[in-house]
Amino acid sequence: MIPNDPVEHLIALLSRLPGLGRRSARRAVLKMLMDPADKMLPLAEALHAAAEAVRPCETCGNLDTTSPCHICTDTHRDRKLVCVVEGVADLWALERAHAHRGTYHVLGGLLSALGGTGPDDLSITPLLRRIESDGIEEVILALPATVDGATTNHYLTDRLKPTGATITRLAQGVPIGGALDVLDDGTLAAAFKARRPL
Amino acid sequence: MIPNDPVEHLIALLSRLPGLGRRSARRAVLKMLMDPADKMLPLAEALHAAAEAVRPCETCGNLDTTSPCHICTDTHRDRKLVCVVEGVADLWALERAHAHRGTYHVLGGLLSALGGTGPDDLSITPLLRRIESDGIEEVILALPATVDGATTNHYLTDRLKPTGATITRLAQGVPIGGALDVLDDGTLAAAFKARRPL
Ligand SMILES: [Zn+2]
Ligand SMILES: [Zn+2]
Repeated sequence: MIPNDPVEHLIALLSRLPGLGRRSARRAVLKMLMDPADKMLPLAEALHAAAEAVRPCETCGNLDTTSPCHICTDTHRDRKLVCVVEGVADLWALERAHAHRGTYHVLGGLLSALGGTGPDDLSITPLLRRIESDGIEEVILALPATVDGATTNHYLTDRLKPTGATITRLAQGVPIGGALDVLDDGTLAAAFKARRPL
Repeated sequence: MIPNDPVEHLIALLSRLPGLGRRSARRAVLKMLMDPADKMLPLAEALHAAAEAVRPCETCGNLDTTSPCHICTDTHRDRKLVCVVEGVADLWALERAHAHRGTYHVLGGLLSALGGTGPDDLSITPLLRRIESDGIEEVILALPATVDGATTNHYLTDRLKPTGATITRLAQGVPIGGALDVLDDGTLAAAFKARRPL
């Protein structure tokens, strides 16, 4: 029915993106089809370019066009201060909030008994190595205020204590159960500033 | 800040699509960047393929991979019965609803004094020509129930009368399955006024 394969295929792919249902995907495709040269081809190009250019930073796990990423190579950053996040989305959210003047470390997940995620699935050994080699003085655990976040906080506190680094976590103010990357910048910056030692 | 040009550029393009704000665009891009080969490149391909393949139907204005489109060339359709719509989105909606067994004609807009859209900006002359050459017997005006929709209805009725074709418009009333108390007042008043004996 309706048009043919290429359009239905495109709608199906678009509607898999978070935030786009089938109806919005259809509307988006229709709008682009009104002016394909100006609306569709540039988007196709941009997807290609990003897919080609972006890679994970070998140091911190951020996604960027260089590895090490522009944060890890920024000489104005305080390398003695590392902020541990669950994922890249959280890193980007903290950057948008201008909350942190140090570097980051992306864990790549949280410990989860139910989800079957153990310490070996997370980037913990590389974090320990960085603390050692960079002489990191403070590790800020910026993990979500969920059960898995708390479990991971406890586990990391135990594992990192022998390094001698101060371990802190974000202040109350991060809503229980709330993901960091949907918080407004002000809340995020305030919680960051009021971080507490664990 | 945050990553580099290709990613920000992609987020900017995506966030221009209807239904996607900046935040959802960012989340969508991040999700795709986790697995570019599987998530980004196929979408880029699909956009390319659709942009290459889809064109407007020279007869009715539908968007399809062939011109005339698959509706205009469908021999099971009643060619004496043409449904006039504002845009392709309406055509697709009527097709999804299996509401119409004839063909379509896409006006490409509505008359609008404020918007500066006049009769010459719409596909009216081609419609008159089709009525003549195909011996169309009924023209169904499926235009939105707005001020511009009503203006266009009146104008088209005057222009099409000399052809001798019957001119009808969609019934207005309470949507099937819709609760009364969520309807806007205008719809409710119109439905009340147009009440029918049972
Ligand atoms: Zn990095
Ligand atoms: Zn057609």
